[in-house]
Amino acid sequence: MTKFSVLILGSASASPTLTRNPSAQLVNINEQYYLVDCGEGTQSRLREHKIKFQRLHHIFISHLHGDHYLGLLGLLQTMHLLGRTLSLNIYGPKQLKEIIDINLSYSHSTLKYSLVFHETNIEKPTILLENEQITVSSIPLDHRIPCTGFLFKEKIKPRIVNIEEVNKLGIPKYALNKLKNGDDFCFPESGKIIKNEVLTFNPEPSCSYAYCSDTKFNERIIKQIKDVSVLYHEATFLERDIKRVVTTYHSTARQAAEIAQKSNAKLLIIGHFSNRYKDLNLLLNEAKLVFEHTVLGLENLTFEIA
Amino acid sequence: MTKFSVLILGSASASPTLTRNPSAQLVNINEQYYLVDCGEGTQSRLREHKIKFQRLHHIFISHLHGDHYLGLLGLLQTMHLLGRTLSLNIYGPKQLKEIIDINLSYSHSTLKYSLVFHETNIEKPTILLENEQITVSSIPLDHRIPCTGFLFKEKIKPRIVNIEEVNKLGIPKYALNKLKNGDDFCFPESGKIIKNEVLTFNPEPSCSYAYCSDTKFNERIIKQIKDVSVLYHEATFLERDIKRVVTTYHSTARQAAEIAQKSNAKLLIIGHFSNRYKDLNLLLNEAKLVFEHTVLGLENLTFEIA
Repeated sequence: MTKFSVLILGSASASPTLTRNPSAQLVNINEQYYLVDCGEGTQSRLREHKIKFQRLHHIFISHLHGDHYLGLLGLLQTMHLLGRTLSLNIYGPKQLKEIIDINLSYSHSTLKYSLVFHETNIEKPTILLENEQITVSSIPLDHRIPCTGFLFKEKIKPRIVNIEEVNKLGIPKYALNKLKNGDDFCFPESGKIIKNEVLTFNPEPSCSYAYCSDTKFNERIIKQIKDVSVLYHEATFLERDIKRVVTTYHSTARQAAEIAQKSNAKLLIIGHFSNRYKDLNLLLNEAKLVFEHTVLGLENLTFEIA
Repeated sequence: MTKFSVLILGSASASPTLTRNPSAQLVNINEQYYLVDCGEGTQSRLREHKIKFQRLHHIFISHLHGDHYLGLLGLLQTMHLLGRTLSLNIYGPKQLKEIIDINLSYSHSTLKYSLVFHETNIEKPTILLENEQITVSSIPLDHRIPCTGFLFKEKIKPRIVNIEEVNKLGIPKYALNKLKNGDDFCFPESGKIIKNEVLTFNPEPSCSYAYCSDTKFNERIIKQIKDVSVLYHEATFLERDIKRVVTTYHSTARQAAEIAQKSNAKLLIIGHFSNRYKDLNLLLNEAKLVFEHTVLGLENLTFEIA
């Protein structure tokens, strides 16, 4: 059984409040961690959750507004002080590299580990990372400055061997991996072929998580995130303040819900709430009118991606 | 009665822990605030203490190690979002300006208020700020990168009029301000002179606060901070780890105490503790062996400067 979840570390937009932190999320795929955005204080949030920094090998930064990246330098520095030697991959707008370099240079810091910087493509969806379990692609968003979201997508999983049938038919053990990959089985002596679907069940479904912050309402992303398991979409404002999205390039809760609906998402997590709203249920209720399966992405909540 | 105090917002060195924050202190002189260093999360610490950001007009940054300035950009951004229009003075190493500019530039942010940047002089003590109440001077420190401390010094206060004597001798009211300044009084008709010391008492003592972090043991600062009311001096290590100060350019608790003793300080606050020490009383006790009036500069403690 795959573990695939996201832990919300920050739900605030722009500035932290006494109870809410700037953007950061920790995606956990079978205990492999992926940090998405890294607002000020993220290293402290990770500590509170007892996340070992050295198990983090990939950090994704959506854009260069401070509430999405100002915690990165402190985290890099702490990893260095903790004796990290394994390289660390950072994915983000190209200017982020310059910002990191200038800070390290003036502090006369030479990290004990290497930073591998991957520039994000803001023009079109691009695979940023691929390993045995997942691909992570950039999602071009429409914000005031260059910005991408990130789509985490499990690869198609192995088919599940029907042990009972395999034993009954006397399929040898060496053939099992091929069966998992979908191959039919051919008895070498008789040449008799047993169809794969007789010997296996369908694999567990592959799940996906799309992180879309910050962005104005942008239907162009729907094609890429179609049928996503869980969509995180920013919902900075209520519809009553919709005029604000014009200048700020953010979304309303209703707009987030519309994207979820049109993408056929199973669940919508909203976040990046403006500090002007004391009662966040206003945002939740507005979204639910359009897309029932919506939840507030509040600090310290973990959502299973399924 | 003057209010002059310092609130400790962070006592950690290098990295925050679950209970301790990176360097930041808030000096309060008659409700005028001066922020000294601004480690990651400082804006959240200020909020916890209900400090109105808009009452902050002067921020002093000692040096460009992340634990002393990485909270600055978030704070500047929040001030902007809160609608600040009054200019803000920042005092620090010249490269800090470049770091601020590059971050603002890539976030396409134009602050609604002006930043007035004052480069600190790391070669010799230099007055950075002077107003009716105080002067603030840089204290050249000896760290791995350019670094200054800051000396807050109250100006000589007005002498205190001896009302009883003034009334008895029939000194006119118009003369009182001059008496406070130390002038003698001369009766215009008779030409008779009354000495100031007959008509006034000595003023309240002028107090001073020296912030010295980060630095290795450096006796050159003693002349500048001689007779300081309260000395904050970093005490990153214990003597048993003294070999670490050679490469890190930090001080031991004993060394901090020696500076306090030789400076004839009234009180020593130690801080910037290495995370390696679970029991900070080890540092306190080591310092107290040399300088009895030592306290731990822990988070949320306020010390009167007197």
